[in-house]
Amino acid sequence: MGGFAPKTGTLLVQAPHHKGIVSAIQQLLVSHGATVIDAAHHAEDGRLYQRLRFDSSMLEGPLEHALRNLAARFELSWQISYAKKRIAILTSKQEHCLYDLLVRHRGGELPCEIAMIISNHPDAEPIAKHFGTPFYYLPVTAESKPRQEADMVTLLQGIDLVVLARYMQILSPGFVKCFPQRIINIHHSFLPAFIGANPYRQAHERGVKMIGATSHYVTAELDQGPIIEQATVGISHRDGVDDLTRKGRDLEKRVLAAAVRAHLDDRILVHANKTVVFD
Amino acid sequence: MGGFAPKTGTLLVQAPHHKGIVSAIQQLLVSHGATVIDAAHHAEDGRLYQRLRFDSSMLEGPLEHALRNLAARFELSWQISYAKKRIAILTSKQEHCLYDLLVRHRGGELPCEIAMIISNHPDAEPIAKHFGTPFYYLPVTAESKPRQEADMVTLLQGIDLVVLARYMQILSPGFVKCFPQRIINIHHSFLPAFIGANPYRQAHERGVKMIGATSHYVTAELDQGPIIEQATVGISHRDGVDDLTRKGRDLEKRVLAAAVRAHLDDRILVHANKTVVFD
Amino acid sequence: MGGFAPKTGTLLVQAPHHKGIVSAIQQLLVSHGATVIDAAHHAEDGRLYQRLRFDSSMLEGPLEHALRNLAARFELSWQISYAKKRIAILTSKQEHCLYDLLVRHRGGELPCEIAMIISNHPDAEPIAKHFGTPFYYLPVTAESKPRQEADMVTLLQGIDLVVLARYMQILSPGFVKCFPQRIINIHHSFLPAFIGANPYRQAHERGVKMIGATSHYVTAELDQGPIIEQATVGISHRDGVDDLTRKGRDLEKRVLAAAVRAHLDDRILVHANKTVVFD
Amino acid sequence: MGGFAPKTGTLLVQAPHHKGIVSAIQQLLVSHGATVIDAAHHAEDGRLYQRLRFDSSMLEGPLEHALRNLAARFELSWQISYAKKRIAILTSKQEHCLYDLLVRHRGGELPCEIAMIISNHPDAEPIAKHFGTPFYYLPVTAESKPRQEADMVTLLQGIDLVVLARYMQILSPGFVKCFPQRIINIHHSFLPAFIGANPYRQAHERGVKMIGATSHYVTAELDQGPIIEQATVGISHRDGVDDLTRKGRDLEKRVLAAAVRAHLDDRILVHANKTVVFD
Repeated sequence: MGGFAPKTGTLLVQAPHHKGIVSAIQQLLVSHGATVIDAAHHAEDGRLYQRLRFDSSMLEGPLEHALRNLAARFELSWQISYAKKRIAILTSKQEHCLYDLLVRHRGGELPCEIAMIISNHPDAEPIAKHFGTPFYYLPVTAESKPRQEADMVTLLQGIDLVVLARYMQILSPGFVKCFPQRIINIHHSFLPAFIGANPYRQAHERGVKMIGATSHYVTAELDQGPIIEQATVGISHRDGVDDLTRKGRDLEKRVLAAAVRAHLDDRILVHANKTVVFD
Repeated sequence: MGGFAPKTGTLLVQAPHHKGIVSAIQQLLVSHGATVIDAAHHAEDGRLYQRLRFDSSMLEGPLEHALRNLAARFELSWQISYAKKRIAILTSKQEHCLYDLLVRHRGGELPCEIAMIISNHPDAEPIAKHFGTPFYYLPVTAESKPRQEADMVTLLQGIDLVVLARYMQILSPGFVKCFPQRIINIHHSFLPAFIGANPYRQAHERGVKMIGATSHYVTAELDQGPIIEQATVGISHRDGVDDLTRKGRDLEKRVLAAAVRAHLDDRILVHANKTVVFD
Repeated sequence: MGGFAPKTGTLLVQAPHHKGIVSAIQQLLVSHGATVIDAAHHAEDGRLYQRLRFDSSMLEGPLEHALRNLAARFELSWQISYAKKRIAILTSKQEHCLYDLLVRHRGGELPCEIAMIISNHPDAEPIAKHFGTPFYYLPVTAESKPRQEADMVTLLQGIDLVVLARYMQILSPGFVKCFPQRIINIHHSFLPAFIGANPYRQAHERGVKMIGATSHYVTAELDQGPIIEQATVGISHRDGVDDLTRKGRDLEKRVLAAAVRAHLDDRILVHANKTVVFD
Repeated sequence: MGGFAPKTGTLLVQAPHHKGIVSAIQQLLVSHGATVIDAAHHAEDGRLYQRLRFDSSMLEGPLEHALRNLAARFELSWQISYAKKRIAILTSKQEHCLYDLLVRHRGGELPCEIAMIISNHPDAEPIAKHFGTPFYYLPVTAESKPRQEADMVTLLQGIDLVVLARYMQILSPGFVKCFPQRIINIHHSFLPAFIGANPYRQAHERGVKMIGATSHYVTAELDQGPIIEQATVGISHRDGVDDLTRKGRDLEKRVLAAAVRAHLDDRILVHANKTVVFD
C-alpha cells in the first residue's frame, strides 16, 4: 500500500434503506484509506441513494472486494469510477447538438474524452476534423441495420457513454441492451407529451403555449426511458413549426449537455425508471 | 347620433384572409364614428385574426348592422363588447385559485364584476362573504347532477365567463354547450401530458423533472379544449407528490388568472381548437 | 432518558472546516440519543455549513451543554430548534403579500403560527379578522417612530421571525439589531439593481427587459442584507409602470413565501452577508 | 417603373403621435406600389413607433423621396431596408459566443452575411476558416488603440452591424460614434446590476441567487446603452465563480443571438435610450 499518487473516485450506491447502511459504507471507504470529500444522499420509498466522492492513494482491488461483500449483505448495487470517461457521439444531419457538445468540451465544460463521432451521413466529417475527433461514417438502411449496429458495437468497445445528438435512427433493443444506462438521448418535446416523430409539428397542431425538450437514458421502449433533465420555453400563436424548431434547438442543446455533464460527474442513479440526479 | 358619452369597445374578428378585408373593417369603424385606439392582427394559414379597440359616442345598432353585412360578405365571424364583463367562479374544496382570483380582483388586476361564487361544498361561503360576493352552495351527486347543472344554468343567466377555479366535477356536454368559449378551466399539468385525474401523481410516477399547469376553454372532450396559457416549474427527485402539489399551486394561480385576464380584455380568438392570444 | 415523546429537531451549524468536525457533530447527536433523519452540508472557502434533522426523546439540556463545549473547541456557531416557529407579519397598505402568506398558511404551506399582524394603517384589520389573526394598528410619523418601534419590540417578544410583507417604513438600526437574521423583507427589484424607492419606476426608466424581486434578511444598511431568494419575469416595451407593478406582484408573493418557508424549515445559514439555503 | 422583381422591404418609423400619421404612412407606401404584408405599432408617451414590411416592385427613389417629405412634416425619423444585412463579429479569446453565432448562421437562424471576423488575438483564425469567413487579426495595446480602431473602421466600411461577441476591449467614443445603433454588445450581467469588469465575480461576492446577461446597443457610456434583450438563470450557494461563468455562457449565447436576430429583422427602434423590440 502507499506509493500511489492520490486519485479521486466516485462511488454511487443504492440499496433498501437498512439502519446502519450509511455509516457502514462510509466506514468501509475510510478503512480502505479513502478521504470522503463530498457526500450526498437521498431516501425515498424505503430506498437509499448515495454518492460519495473520495480521494485515495490505495489499490482499488481491496476496496472493490469489500464493496462486493457489502453488496451481498445489503442487496446493494454500486458503481465506482476513477478516470475521466470516454464518450462517443452519434449524430445524423442536424448539427446543432453536435457542435454544442464539441464547443462545450473544448471550453472545458465536459470533463471527458470525446473518443469518436459516428454518423449515418457523411456531413459531419469536416466538423469532426475541425475539432480533431475521429469520425466514422456508417450509413444505414432497413436491411443493413443489424450489420451497422454490430459495427457500432465493435467501435464502441470501451466507451462509457453513448450520446445521441439528434441521431435520427431508432436503435434496436439488442443494441440498447449492450449499453444499459449508458445511452443518453435528447427528445425534442416535454415528455411524456408528443412521443415519437415530429414533436414540434405535434405541438403546433395541439396549440400548446410552451415547448420542451427532454434528455433521458435510452431503453428498449421508445421515448420511455428514465428522464434526466427537461426544460421549456414559451411560444405564441405567431410561432409556426419553423419557429418552434428554432426555439426548440436552444432547449435541446442545454438539456442534452446538462444530462451528459451529470452522467460524466457520476451524479445520476436510476431506479424504477426514474432518476436521482444529485446537484 | 351624438349626445352619448364616449365609450370604449373591442371588436374581435376572424375570417378567411381576402384582400381588402383589413381596410374594409377599419373603414367600417371609422365611418360609424369610432376612433381606433389599438389594433392587432395575426394571419395564419390563409386566415385573418384581428382585434380593434375603439372609442365611440355613437349608437351601437348601426355599427352592428354594418358588421352583420360585412360578415355575410366575407365569411367573417365577429364579436363586439363594450362593458365590463360579469363572471362566475365555480369551485370545490381547494381554495388557492379562488382566493387568488378574489384578491387580484380586489387589487384591480381583473377588470370585471365577480357576480357569484358557486360551489358543490359549503366551505367557501365565509370566503365569499369576506369579499362581498354572493355565494351559492349547490351540492352534487351522480343522481342530482342534471338537476344541479340546470340550477347552475339558471343562475348563470347573463354571465359572460364561467371560471372553474379547481371545480372538481366534470361538466356534462350539455352544460358545456350552453357556454361556448365562455368556460375557462385550469388543469394541473402541462397538457397534453397527464390528462385526467391526479396529474401530480402521474407526473411523480413518470419521473418528470418539470411540472406544469394549463388553462383552456372547456369543450365536450375532457382536457382537450383550446389552450390559453401554460407555465412550468422545475422539480427534482427530492420532491414528493406533496411538493409537486404545493409547487403546482403557484402555477395554477398564475396560469388561470392570466387566462381570465386575457378573456376579460377580449384578447382571445379561437379557431380549429387553437387560440390566438394578443398581447 | 425515556419517558418523553420523540420530537424532531433541527441543528444548524457553521465553523471553520477542521478535519473531524463533521463526525464530531454527528457523534455528539447520536451519543445524546438522537437519530439523524436528514443531513446536508456545504463547504466553501474553508468553512463548513451543516444542517441536521433528528428525532430525539431525550432532554434538551445535556445536548445543548455538549454543543456549547464543542462550539468553544471549534469556533463553531450553532442553533437548534424543535418547535413550530411563531411569526409576525408587518404590513402597510398593499395587501397582496399579506393575503398570499395567510392563504398559504391556511393551506398548510407554512409550518408556523402566525401570531400577529402589525400595520401602520388600519386597512388590514378585516383581513386579519377573516383569518383569525390578532391585529395591531400602530400608526407612525417621523416623530412617533421611536415610540412605535418600541411598541413593536414589546409586541414581538417571543416571536421567531418578523416578515415585512410590503411594510413601507424603513426600520431603524436599533430595531433591526433586536432581530438579527430574524427579519425577512421583500424588495421589488432584482437586487443589487434598483435599490431604494420606486424600483418599478426605476426599471421602466432604464428600459430593462426583465424585472425581479428579492427576499433578504434585513440589516442596518437598506436593501443590503443577505439575499435568500430571487426571481425574474420578462417584460416588453408594451409594459408601463402599472404593468410592471402588476407582474412584479406575482414575483413578490412567490419570493417572499419561499424565503419564509426556508427560514421556518431552518434551511438558511448566513455568513459574510451571504446565505446558504439548503434544498 | 415596373419590370423589377418584387422585393421585400422593411420601414421603421418613429415620430410624435399626430393624428393621421399612421394612415399617412400606409397610404404613402400603397401609393408607391407597395403591398403591406405585416404591420406593428406601439404608442407610448405621445410617441408612435411603427414597423411595416412590404413587397414592392417599384423603384426605391420615389418612395424615399416621399418619405423625406413626410419626415419633414411630422418630425418623423425613418429607416428603410431591403437587402440582407452584412455583419462583422469582433471577438477576443472566449469562443462560445463566436461559435454560437457561426453555427446559428450556418443553420439558417441568422438571415445575414457574416462578412468578417476581427479579433485582437489570433486564436479564432481556425474557427473562421472552418466556417469560411474572412478573418482579420488586429492586436491592440494602449498605444496602438487609435491606429487599430482606425483600421477597423476601414475594414467595416459597408457593414450594417458590428457584433461584439465577448470582445474584451472598450471601444473609444470616437469609434462608437461611427456606428450609431449599429454595435451590439453582450454584457454578462443583469444590467444595471454589476456594470464593468468581472460581473460574475461581483455577483458571487454579493451572494445573488440568479445571474443574468444583457445585450444592448453600445453607446459612449460603458454598459449604459439601450437594452435589447435580457435573460436570467437561478444559481445557489453551491455555485462558485466558475459555475457562474459556465452557467452564464448559456445566457450570453442566447441573449446575444436574440438581439442580433431582432436587429437583422429590423424589429428594433430606439428612443430616449430605450428600445421597442417588435415580436
